[in-house]
Amino acid sequence: MTLSGGASRQGGNDAVPRGSQAGQGADMPAFAHSNTVLFQHCDPAGIVFYPRYFEMINAVVETFFAEAVGWSFHQMHVVERLGVPMGRIEADFHAASRLGDVLDWTLATARVGGASADLVIRAACANEARLTARGTLVMVDLDRMKSRRWPDGPRAVLERYAEDVA
Amino acid sequence: MTLSGGASRQGGNDAVPRGSQAGQGADMPAFAHSNTVLFQHCDPAGIVFYPRYFEMINAVVETFFAEAVGWSFHQMHVVERLGVPMGRIEADFHAASRLGDVLDWTLATARVGGASADLVIRAACANEARLTARGTLVMVDLDRMKSRRWPDGPRAVLERYAEDVA
Amino acid sequence: MTLSGGASRQGGNDAVPRGSQAGQGADMPAFAHSNTVLFQHCDPAGIVFYPRYFEMINAVVETFFAEAVGWSFHQMHVVERLGVPMGRIEADFHAASRLGDVLDWTLATARVGGASADLVIRAACANEARLTARGTLVMVDLDRMKSRRWPDGPRAVLERYAEDVA
Amino acid sequence: MTLSGGASRQGGNDAVPRGSQAGQGADMPAFAHSNTVLFQHCDPAGIVFYPRYFEMINAVVETFFAEAVGWSFHQMHVVERLGVPMGRIEADFHAASRLGDVLDWTLATARVGGASADLVIRAACANEARLTARGTLVMVDLDRMKSRRWPDGPRAVLERYAEDVA
Repeated sequence: MTLSGGASRQGGNDAVPRGSQAGQGADMPAFAHSNTVLFQHCDPAGIVFYPRYFEMINAVVETFFAEAVGWSFHQMHVVERLGVPMGRIEADFHAASRLGDVLDWTLATARVGGASADLVIRAACANEARLTARGTLVMVDLDRMKSRRWPDGPRAVLERYAEDVA
Repeated sequence: MTLSGGASRQGGNDAVPRGSQAGQGADMPAFAHSNTVLFQHCDPAGIVFYPRYFEMINAVVETFFAEAVGWSFHQMHVVERLGVPMGRIEADFHAASRLGDVLDWTLATARVGGASADLVIRAACANEARLTARGTLVMVDLDRMKSRRWPDGPRAVLERYAEDVA
Repeated sequence: MTLSGGASRQGGNDAVPRGSQAGQGADMPAFAHSNTVLFQHCDPAGIVFYPRYFEMINAVVETFFAEAVGWSFHQMHVVERLGVPMGRIEADFHAASRLGDVLDWTLATARVGGASADLVIRAACANEARLTARGTLVMVDLDRMKSRRWPDGPRAVLERYAEDVA
Repeated sequence: MTLSGGASRQGGNDAVPRGSQAGQGADMPAFAHSNTVLFQHCDPAGIVFYPRYFEMINAVVETFFAEAVGWSFHQMHVVERLGVPMGRIEADFHAASRLGDVLDWTLATARVGGASADLVIRAACANEARLTARGTLVMVDLDRMKSRRWPDGPRAVLERYAEDVA
């Protein structure tokens, strides 16, 4: 990712709290989140049991929606009866993580479709890459269990977090 | 999968407990395992929370090693200090699973390398496909955290469970 | 447990599938269920991480309701919108459990109240006691999140599984 | 809890970072920690699945040891091969917690024995009590799986977090 402009803003709008100015080539930094590898994440080999990584990935997505999109999972699921289940996901585990490691996560979007979004989620520890995951969220109506279009506000935020692929 | 060589047997050999008849074009059935979707697997939308699928996938792999390969995770991890962590995994979630669904899992191998194996793991409920996962196991020495070659016995079993791609 | 009243039957009745002979001092056996300690249950010390025991306890309760009471959690939660959350629970961990151990669980009732039931749930491995848990289930209406009386059929089964305290 | 003295100190000593002056009747505030109820903690009824509370309790204990005692679980388990498994635990669930709730946890000690400690751990949300847990940690040597005396430094901290029972 290159930051060619100085136009990025932080916060200032609940619905679209972070973003870059359009038409200026400025890139959005990926959403960042950290967590510590706890005892409950580790297996008998003393390393993170990989299903726990998917719980962490879900927490990164949930925090992204709450903090960056301004759409808490409580509001989304309970009040609006919408959800964002994963339609597919893949993960490459580059190196093992151990008890006490601080994982620095980033989330960016690779594509935003009508009713879906491809995410790129990475974890590193002290700048050593630990995993790269690529997943496709689907925006669904929970009562009908059918996909539906993203509302405009969340879509705009998802688009602002597009990963620079150049 | 076709076995052109000598007679495989059902049972009678701890290391190679299942097989198909040779020279008849018979295919090795994939390893099969079932579990019921429990309360603890389901999210507030009432469907399986996808990180729980990876716990189930791990249980399928663990059961495969215990029952088909004859190599329990206790023996592998605790006694021999070896492990089979996932190096990568991808999963397509075809349809949601709900509380009480009985999931029928199959495991087959797509490729067996020197120190790794690509697995294809599928779940269905009443013949409706629920997910297809493809993962790469790596055979590792836990104390040195380095990959090492499969022992011959387990490798032979992994090869017998090769998915018929013809 | 002694049943001084009329004839209980084994099976033959979905709501009351198991029972002891009346008037003969026969005891109702506790409900039994087994599971193997899997990789996902174990912590970096190689023993069961105790929160996983509570997942197992929940699975024992869920299986008891499905198999002994004839009331699956799907039917209870999704169709009838009722639930049986724990109001309190205590557990004594007598000895550690390890990867590959087969845990034999029993469930009995210690008291059946109007809208609650005290359960005694034990796990052993090869006759070595591993844990004893005592918990209080509360029968609740999920939509109003209020307790309500047990239906008569389930109550009768809960009473038949009363632990012999004599 | 009453704070009758002004002698409490905060920090200033890695091994004993917080504490009150002895013999002055000063009380130590309980250790405090917060977490948000995430999607992964909730069951199909939309409330926290109680085994997840025990994962949270373990995280509170782990954070207490890292931050208050100055003894990370990595240092304790991996470097020193010691552990603090629960010997018993009981929990009263006063009210249900829901997706998005912020849980404020406190941890205090009720008794510090030679090789064990009784903890009182509470969670509240916006001052509404959600649960009270009482557990007994046992200090163990992981390689011999035997209990052993607390080192002096950690014991001193545990004693400083004694709950005022007057």
